[in-house]
Formats: sequence, C-alpha cells, structure tokens
Amino acid sequence: MKTLSSRDNPDFRLLLRTLQGQRAPGERGGAVRVALEGVHLCESWLSFAGQPELAFVDSDRQMQPEIAALLRALDPARVRLCTPALLRAASQVVQGQGVIFLARAPQPVMPERIQSNCLWLDRVQDPGNLGTLLRTAAAAGIDCVFASKGTVAAWSPKVLRSAQGAHFVLQIFEGQDLVALRARLDIPLLVTALDAAVSLYDAALPPAAAWVFGNEGQGVAPGLLAHADLRVRIPHSTRVESLNVAVAAGVCLFEQLRQVGRPQ
Amino acid sequence: MKTLSSRDNPDFRLLLRTLQGQRAPGERGGAVRVALEGVHLCESWLSFAGQPELAFVDSDRQMQPEIAALLRALDPARVRLCTPALLRAASQVVQGQGVIFLARAPQPVMPERIQSNCLWLDRVQDPGNLGTLLRTAAAAGIDCVFASKGTVAAWSPKVLRSAQGAHFVLQIFEGQDLVALRARLDIPLLVTALDAAVSLYDAALPPAAAWVFGNEGQGVAPGLLAHADLRVRIPHSTRVESLNVAVAAGVCLFEQLRQVGRPQ
Repeated sequence: MKTLSSRDNPDFRLLLRTLQGQRAPGERGGAVRVALEGVHLCESWLSFAGQPELAFVDSDRQMQPEIAALLRALDPARVRLCTPALLRAASQVVQGQGVIFLARAPQPVMPERIQSNCLWLDRVQDPGNLGTLLRTAAAAGIDCVFASKGTVAAWSPKVLRSAQGAHFVLQIFEGQDLVALRARLDIPLLVTALDAAVSLYDAALPPAAAWVFGNEGQGVAPGLLAHADLRVRIPHSTRVESLNVAVAAGVCLFEQLRQVGRPQ
Repeated sequence: MKTLSSRDNPDFRLLLRTLQGQRAPGERGGAVRVALEGVHLCESWLSFAGQPELAFVDSDRQMQPEIAALLRALDPARVRLCTPALLRAASQVVQGQGVIFLARAPQPVMPERIQSNCLWLDRVQDPGNLGTLLRTAAAAGIDCVFASKGTVAAWSPKVLRSAQGAHFVLQIFEGQDLVALRARLDIPLLVTALDAAVSLYDAALPPAAAWVFGNEGQGVAPGLLAHADLRVRIPHSTRVESLNVAVAAGVCLFEQLRQVGRPQ
C-alpha cells in the first residue's frame, strides 16, 4: 500500500471533490459518490454495503485497534494510506479519526405502491435534524424515507455524521413531490400538527402509515396537510411552542410501536 | 436612539466579549452575561425574564414588523441601534435576524430536597443535543435540569439557539457532581441503558423521577449508573446501535406523561 502525500493525487482529488459536493469531471447520472468519515460510519458501510470504492487511512494510525480492524476487512487494492497532514486536509471534523471512505450511495428503486410504515419529510432544513430523523426512523423499524424537494441533501457529511449509519439500512428517496407521491399510498397519511384536535395518545394509530414531518419553522406545507387522513397533536407544556422535529418523530414513532407492536 | 457604527463602542465591545465567552474587565462572580440572538429568543426573554441589559438592533430593520414589535416592548434606554455591517460582525449565524440581546443568566437557588420530576445530564457534549434536551424537558413540564461537570456550557449561543427559549422557563444548575447530588433526592434515580432488562413500556414509571441521560458516545458513567433505582431500555430495532440522546429523552419523558398524566 503506497502512502499518498500530495493533494495532486487523482484519488485524493476525487475525495476532495466529493466532499465539496462536486461530481468527477465528465461524470453524469448514476449513483452519486459520497464521503464517509469516522470509524463508526466506515464500519457500518462495510457491514451493510460491503467494500467502498476507496478507503483513505491515516498512515500514522494503521496500528490503532479500530483502524487495524478496518484494514483487515478492506480489500488492500482500495486502501490509500495518507500522511496525517493530507488526511487532515480532507477531514470535516475538528478531531478526525483517521479514516474516510469514498463510496457510491445506493440507488433505491421507487416502489409501485407504498404499503409499509414510512417517513415523509417536507423541507427539513437542518442537517443535524435530518440525520437524527433518519436514525430515529431506522431505530423504529422503518425502511423507507421520502424527502421532498427543499429538504437538505441526505448524503452530505453532516447528515451522515448525525445519522450514525442509518443511511445504510434505509431506502432514501430524495427530491420527491410529496403531494404527487400520495397516488402511490395504500396506507394513511398521518401528520402531526400543533393545532390538531386528536391527541397522539387518544388516536388509534394504524400499524402502517406515512408519517409526515415538516420544516423546522413552518411545519408541514398546507398543500400537503390538506391531504392528511389523520392529524394528531403531541400534548405538551404550553411553556414551549413546539418540540424539535426529530424528537417529535421519536415520540410519535415509538408511541405507534407501543400501540401496534415492537420492531424485530 | 443613537446608531452605533464602531467596534470600539464600549457596549458593542461588551457584546463581543460576551459572545466570545469572556467576562467584562474586573467582573467577578455573580450572574454570567449571555448573548441572545434572533427574534424568537429575544421575544421569549422579554416574556419570561423582562428587559435585557442591552438590545442591539439592525438600524435598517427597525420597521420590519417583528423587530418593530420588539422595539415597542423594549425600554428605549437599553436599545443600541447598529449599522447592518456592525451587527453582522457580532452575529453567530449566516443569516442574522437583526437583533441580539445582552442579558444576565438567571441564578437559580439549589433546592434543599429534590422532589419533582427533573433531568440529570451526564457529560452531554454536543451543544445541539443539549439545547434539544432542554427544549424537550420544558415541553414535558420539567422545571429543573442538573448538568454535570463536563457537560457543554448551557448558555452558549449554539445551545440557546437549539433550545428555542427553554432556558427561560427552566432552572439550570451547571457543573454539578451528580453522584453527590443524590443525597438531596427524594425521588427515584432513573437511568436508560441499552442493556437494561426492563422495557420502558413494561416499567411502572413513577410520577416524579430524576431522569439521567449521558454522554453521546459513552452513555451514563458507571459510577452514577450503579446508583440507579430503576434502569429501563427503549426497545428499538437492532439495525441501529442507539437513539440520539435528545430523542431518547423525548421518548422516555412523553411515555412517563402518558402513564402518569399530562402537563398543564
């Protein structure tokens, strides 16, 4: 395994380009490249998706137990050892863990009909919130997430960090027109709203629903809210206006599991 | 109302110093100064705490409805109109809303005995998580939060932003030795743990407890965990390791409310 020390190395340039959200020159269509930073994310990728395209590893840390374990699992032809300074130049965090994978995001196939419990996200803005929503959905046993146009990019480094590997066990459909997507639904569209009459705890929650959560400031768009089959409210103290969107999703999805059954 | 345009203005320097986490020269002890940025936070401060020490307002935005409403509620002697460039120099966000308050954080008095539902935080690291925990606690009707040494500073700008005004309806005790604090407890110490035998949904949750949530990577310290009166687990899919700490708190606190009664 050769050790890279130059920013001009084509593999390293591809990593930087990916981190900046740019495609490789001449690349069109197909699965978008993503950069996965940190031991936990890279371990998750190996577990759920297999080998990455390339693995950039800090040459000074190859003996650290977690890095050494990753190296044992990696195809050596895909490993690029980097000088510590070079890897730091690519790192998106203050204290990097010495490993970044470059991989192709999965391209899920849109189902003809939507029949199982799923998450619908309407213009969620904050990367930390989106990541936490994905992590919460995966923990609640959800398989599919449909994100509207105007939702922050799901495979960006910040979202990947806060989702802690949830990306790899979910099918994530981005750039969706959620109102149009209703035509595929065989289950109720369920929206939380601050002014809904029915409490989450008084509603008989269906075993499968399309749960909609909306923009941090504005909530769910009126055009989508109008199509809700059921609107529920999380009863909470009036001393605060609302819950954080990911916490609200957690409260709802776990109350549904309590009512209708537990995952796995 | 005079318009400030210079960074050398003593009031503006005090704002910058506060934003950098520094005290005023010669200042010792007493309530720490905090900077509150954005319309919603400043409105909340006026509602719950009254007048700020100083209010810095973008002179170009004083006719905007939300800013104009704030100005009507403010003591004019405390207002400092600033040129847009000057206020931008102090702003901590990409798109400032044209208002920053300087105020003294409340100094709550430690209760002799702890008898009502409360949140105990053990070395929570991420400012966004801490803010969301505070917001969630306030929404669940909790009054007191006890944060250990090693928990991120509660009144920092990032925590204030994500808590959305929850600081002003809570009593927040920072720098606590949580093991020592147990001596004041008249209610059970309740800890969530990934390996606890009892499911949150099978436990008979007490109407009041000290709920402990721990560090994002390491969870609750063993020394504190050993003192738990009740350990519960949130049953979730094995496809993810754990929930985000603020989501876990939301699921627990709202399940407790469901079992024992709703706030207000």
